[in-house]
Amino acid sequence: MTETKDITWAHISLAHGNGGRYMRELIETIFSRYLSNPVLNTQADAASLPDMEGNIMISTDGFTVQPLEFPGGDIGSLSIHGTLNDLAVAGAIPKYMTVNVFIEEGLEVSQLERIVQSMASAAKENNIAIVAGDTKVVPKGQGSGLYLATTGIGIKSGQHTLNIKNINIGDRIVVSGPVGDHGTAIMLAREEFGMHGALQSDAASVLPLTQAVDSIAGLKFMRDPTRGGLATVMHEIQQASGLGVYLYEEQIPIRDEVQTVCDMLGYDPLYLACEGRVVAVVDDNNAEALLACWQQLPQGQEAAIIGKINQGNQVVLRTTLGGERLLDELEDDPLPRIC
Amino acid sequence: MTETKDITWAHISLAHGNGGRYMRELIETIFSRYLSNPVLNTQADAASLPDMEGNIMISTDGFTVQPLEFPGGDIGSLSIHGTLNDLAVAGAIPKYMTVNVFIEEGLEVSQLERIVQSMASAAKENNIAIVAGDTKVVPKGQGSGLYLATTGIGIKSGQHTLNIKNINIGDRIVVSGPVGDHGTAIMLAREEFGMHGALQSDAASVLPLTQAVDSIAGLKFMRDPTRGGLATVMHEIQQASGLGVYLYEEQIPIRDEVQTVCDMLGYDPLYLACEGRVVAVVDDNNAEALLACWQQLPQGQEAAIIGKINQGNQVVLRTTLGGERLLDELEDDPLPRIC
Repeated sequence: MTETKDITWAHISLAHGNGGRYMRELIETIFSRYLSNPVLNTQADAASLPDMEGNIMISTDGFTVQPLEFPGGDIGSLSIHGTLNDLAVAGAIPKYMTVNVFIEEGLEVSQLERIVQSMASAAKENNIAIVAGDTKVVPKGQGSGLYLATTGIGIKSGQHTLNIKNINIGDRIVVSGPVGDHGTAIMLAREEFGMHGALQSDAASVLPLTQAVDSIAGLKFMRDPTRGGLATVMHEIQQASGLGVYLYEEQIPIRDEVQTVCDMLGYDPLYLACEGRVVAVVDDNNAEALLACWQQLPQGQEAAIIGKINQGNQVVLRTTLGGERLLDELEDDPLPRIC
Repeated sequence: MTETKDITWAHISLAHGNGGRYMRELIETIFSRYLSNPVLNTQADAASLPDMEGNIMISTDGFTVQPLEFPGGDIGSLSIHGTLNDLAVAGAIPKYMTVNVFIEEGLEVSQLERIVQSMASAAKENNIAIVAGDTKVVPKGQGSGLYLATTGIGIKSGQHTLNIKNINIGDRIVVSGPVGDHGTAIMLAREEFGMHGALQSDAASVLPLTQAVDSIAGLKFMRDPTRGGLATVMHEIQQASGLGVYLYEEQIPIRDEVQTVCDMLGYDPLYLACEGRVVAVVDDNNAEALLACWQQLPQGQEAAIIGKINQGNQVVLRTTLGGERLLDELEDDPLPRIC
């Protein structure tokens, strides 16, 4: 189904989701045109995957980001990066993905096309084949342009058994780069805030970061700090381990633009999403090796050791002024629809 | 994560999607409570699947049905049956599923709980483990209660190589039961039509039907006629084969209630969705054997041979009055959001 046609409509209508001629044309002119590969067969109900050696891993994620396009990415590339990153931090190499599309009636076809092209590029750059998909159209006023869901299949790589439960007292916490860029870029892209800046989202594949540390002994756990940001990952670690997390504020990389915007609007960057960073927990003896490994990569030049695991049962931030403050678990949503 | 808590909130808020405490509690009290199994780990970014022997198949589907609960099912059971049926008609036995949830702010928690319970029951009845999930909450007025997406993984079973391209002149078309029940039941469940009836959706697993015909020689192709109904599957066959489809109206099983409602509202039941039927194409010599096989099952008692493949390049219906009429490819959406 790789035939291409000129698109003769400007906006998506309900008929593009009805299973009939318009839906077929939408699939042919947009989805198959950009996403086609040998495994994808838009005429079959299910795709047959080539044989895979090794431990198969699976992850899924939904995407509702607003605006659909933002500096540094769009919902299409984000839907690929988000799910591939969940596989990557679990120690897997992503291979295949499925895509669900929920389009709101009235979406501009040209915007949909840009987003699908972006999705295709992100998949191709990361050697991921889109193997199955489904399209639904919802009536105007019952969606918000476009929601996506992707499910990824990968193969576990390396010898690490990553598990949040392996974390112990004395382990070090390392972050691969500045936090809060994605959340702040999304904020700036929303007209409601009336602010503009040059800041780009950090949305990207973290696979180079997670694969680079495959040979680092003592690696216990990795996670990408998305919704709820760095602070939320710290709470997940605290709750799963029953231990304490102790962070050094002056060690946490935060861009000046991010800090400035957060100060003006009253947000805490530690709770804002990243979409291209990794937090790793590694034993004390190997923390410097992991840091050096990341700092050699373009994606990890600003990596830093930001804290440690201790006997407490709270998440504590040692401030630049030398005091200590508790980082509470996130309650109110600071910023809906950032991913 | 199987601990259970009392639910202390009545409606879903944006904070239930923010990655923080409320989202964790929602996952614990609703999703983990009903969907837990040994493979699901709500603390990990990706699930590790047990070893699978054989050809892995994958399928994905989105669900936007309105109303969320209807006679014979709800969006929860539908989301399991829909994706498992896509695997089943491709000749696979479903094993694992992932679930994406898009909740509109304001949804009643009690309704969400009923739907997740229904999803859990449908999965359990079909030996499917939910292995990963993701929850997003969208602001009020940007959704419609609940949208779901499921992705299923199965193993190819049997020796058939099912492919729409295998279809040849003389092959017979068999349907496993009455068509249009689901679409009509959804219509009746919508208050806008001001009609009520006892009709139930046919939404169900078709796995017993697809597995029963594993030993039937000459089986070419199966599909579940969902969006766009029987007529749309006939057009898919016509287009993929380049041959003609010839249907006998008096052979097509349609319930009296379905025909009556369609006559009153001006719908054609051949274009209305089923969610628990299978259409099979089988060579002429084996059509009676396949029919007998289905008729022995509770799900297939009303199965019928409804047509044949011929040299034409159209979909033609021979009417009960003895005339012929073309069944056009579906264009306008007769009934949005039926699945």
